[in-house]
Amino acid sequence: MSDVRARCAPEQFRLLWDQLAPIGRDADGGYLRYAWSDAERACRGWFEAQAATRGMVVTEDGNGNLFAWWDPPGGAATASAVVTGSHFDSVPHGGAYDGPLGIVCAFLAVDLLRERGVAPARPVVVAAFVEEEGGRFGLPCLGSRLLTGALDPAQAARLTDADGRTLAQVTGGLPAGARPDLLARFGAFVELHIEQGKALVDLDAPVGVASAIWPHGRWRMDFAGEGNHAGTTAMADRRDPMLTFAYTVLAANKEARLHGCHATVGRVEASPNATNAVPARVSGWLDARAGDEATLSSLVEAVHKRAVERAGRDGTSVALTAESITGEVRFDTDLARRISETLGGAPVLPTGAGHDAGVLSGFLPTAMLFVRNPTGVSHSPAETASDADCAAGADALADVLTELTR
Amino acid sequence: MSDVRARCAPEQFRLLWDQLAPIGRDADGGYLRYAWSDAERACRGWFEAQAATRGMVVTEDGNGNLFAWWDPPGGAATASAVVTGSHFDSVPHGGAYDGPLGIVCAFLAVDLLRERGVAPARPVVVAAFVEEEGGRFGLPCLGSRLLTGALDPAQAARLTDADGRTLAQVTGGLPAGARPDLLARFGAFVELHIEQGKALVDLDAPVGVASAIWPHGRWRMDFAGEGNHAGTTAMADRRDPMLTFAYTVLAANKEARLHGCHATVGRVEASPNATNAVPARVSGWLDARAGDEATLSSLVEAVHKRAVERAGRDGTSVALTAESITGEVRFDTDLARRISETLGGAPVLPTGAGHDAGVLSGFLPTAMLFVRNPTGVSHSPAETASDADCAAGADALADVLTELTR
Repeated sequence: MSDVRARCAPEQFRLLWDQLAPIGRDADGGYLRYAWSDAERACRGWFEAQAATRGMVVTEDGNGNLFAWWDPPGGAATASAVVTGSHFDSVPHGGAYDGPLGIVCAFLAVDLLRERGVAPARPVVVAAFVEEEGGRFGLPCLGSRLLTGALDPAQAARLTDADGRTLAQVTGGLPAGARPDLLARFGAFVELHIEQGKALVDLDAPVGVASAIWPHGRWRMDFAGEGNHAGTTAMADRRDPMLTFAYTVLAANKEARLHGCHATVGRVEASPNATNAVPARVSGWLDARAGDEATLSSLVEAVHKRAVERAGRDGTSVALTAESITGEVRFDTDLARRISETLGGAPVLPTGAGHDAGVLSGFLPTAMLFVRNPTGVSHSPAETASDADCAAGADALADVLTELTR
Repeated sequence: MSDVRARCAPEQFRLLWDQLAPIGRDADGGYLRYAWSDAERACRGWFEAQAATRGMVVTEDGNGNLFAWWDPPGGAATASAVVTGSHFDSVPHGGAYDGPLGIVCAFLAVDLLRERGVAPARPVVVAAFVEEEGGRFGLPCLGSRLLTGALDPAQAARLTDADGRTLAQVTGGLPAGARPDLLARFGAFVELHIEQGKALVDLDAPVGVASAIWPHGRWRMDFAGEGNHAGTTAMADRRDPMLTFAYTVLAANKEARLHGCHATVGRVEASPNATNAVPARVSGWLDARAGDEATLSSLVEAVHKRAVERAGRDGTSVALTAESITGEVRFDTDLARRISETLGGAPVLPTGAGHDAGVLSGFLPTAMLFVRNPTGVSHSPAETASDADCAAGADALADVLTELTR
């Protein structure tokens, strides 16, 4: 007997969640799940096993992205599919929920649809995208960018990881790149994700719907000076790029506050990075995000100007290189409204974080669901969600899939 | 026939120098000669070959330090030895001269003594100390500290390199530690070294004599905050240790100028070091040097105080740990005067750099010779010396060995 009122119990969520929890976990409870690492491959193995137990056929798109297909019998199998899922890879020492929660809830939603006796009129596809964080090859949403053709496969193949290995070496060849044949079979994409802020805590809501992703980008800042001995070089004779870097870190923070947006320097590399040497070079990466594109440009220009001024005083130089810039992503407004209504008026809110959903939104109607995060912390082991809220997320996703596959 | 007027020709220096030049050289002309790396082992092989061609017996002290012995015949072999030499290891991407010049000139000086027909009344020993820069295990003068007992061998064995390997793993066991038996055979130590500043340029002198080494030390500064998402975390909600680190870098520079001494932050490590994450932790290493110990303490206290103040504003914390502190080294005044006189009144000057000679000076009469460096740059490929000045260094060292082995 089907139970049309079936809801996901927190214990059901926990059962599935605990299968993934140990994979790639470090001593501090954070995760090292770099794309194509042993840990991420183990997660992909789990994905294939989950699909198999549900009778779903798994395909790989030649770019590292996995799709598990629930093809309803009859003509419905040829209708456009509703895709839902997220990614397994983590930022280094990141949290457990960012990515995997969307995949676990996707499988739980499939279970709910079946318990409720829903016979979808379209295929339901659970997706696992690869290298969403850019933690290994430096380019976020690599899998979805390849799939959609937003990233040239030859360019992707040349990207190198921290060990100097190219993507082609790691994956064993050139990615397939754009798959318009596959995209043509997708009618909509819904990504469920842990919230990376505290808006849902303030709104007292377990689940929300995304309206837009702020424009954002990454800029590499290369500061060059003169390597020298830390003990013997007079302060006045130095051309120390660490000073210019440090000043720019503080300037970026100040300008972000003045502009009402976000700026972060979370990554730094010094050369030779020796305690007893004035560095020859320091590179820092600026992550900047703003509510609109004009403000983002103005912020980055202001930081660059102040870095150049300081470099003049330090006898150093600074070069700014945009590594990736993503304009504002406005999710399908009708879809967001329809989903919010389906969920009994769930709150609709913007986010500062990039997602595969942002890339896919340029190609098909796309939406995102957020699950409440009590700490608001993200990309850290402190990121969390209650089992009850995760189960509520699975319920909401099941409701949305029911609505979209009618 | 011996030639009592024999001097080292620049071509003779170049001949020997070119044998070492390619070992461990990177594309920019800098050197990667970490202790116990393939490159440094190749240099040690060259050392053994040079000793063999001169009929000198090589011993190793169980700590990684090499000694090539020229034992004059008869009773002189039991007299206390005059030791001269330096080290092969480099800071990462450092220059060619820092270290190897002292070893090459030592062998050339042995050749000159023989050409001049000098029959030393004491053994002459050419030394190659290991891990002088601390580039691999973080502790400078590791070899001489072990030999003299200034460093506990069990503590040394636990030191780790950037790959997480312990010294014991790299060297295959526990170092021998203090060798009082060996030190008892040493009557004096003279280290020839490239100058790491421009004093000899200003004085128009190819060779100088050291008076003292400034007190100096290394402090690790651990800044801790809260790892978070760079895109979604409001600026006001952040506890970003990169800001505290950056402020402290600028404060160290300012305080060093105010105190008339040297402070450098040349090494930094951020965690997770991801572009899209507010770091959870940033560690920076402070290298500080001053003309006297009170000023050094005052400098480090001032930097620490400002770091703590800023941490309070950033919602972060800072912990300062002294990794090594070396008091002022005043070289044997009589020996320095005697050497300066031997060299026809060579200038006597202090230095801000640590050396194995500084460690050994606590155990036996020790002196240093400096060779002019036109750029004054050190720990960088820009470090240089003319072949003529290097040959003049070998001459001076031969004169000093002649005087000290009478």
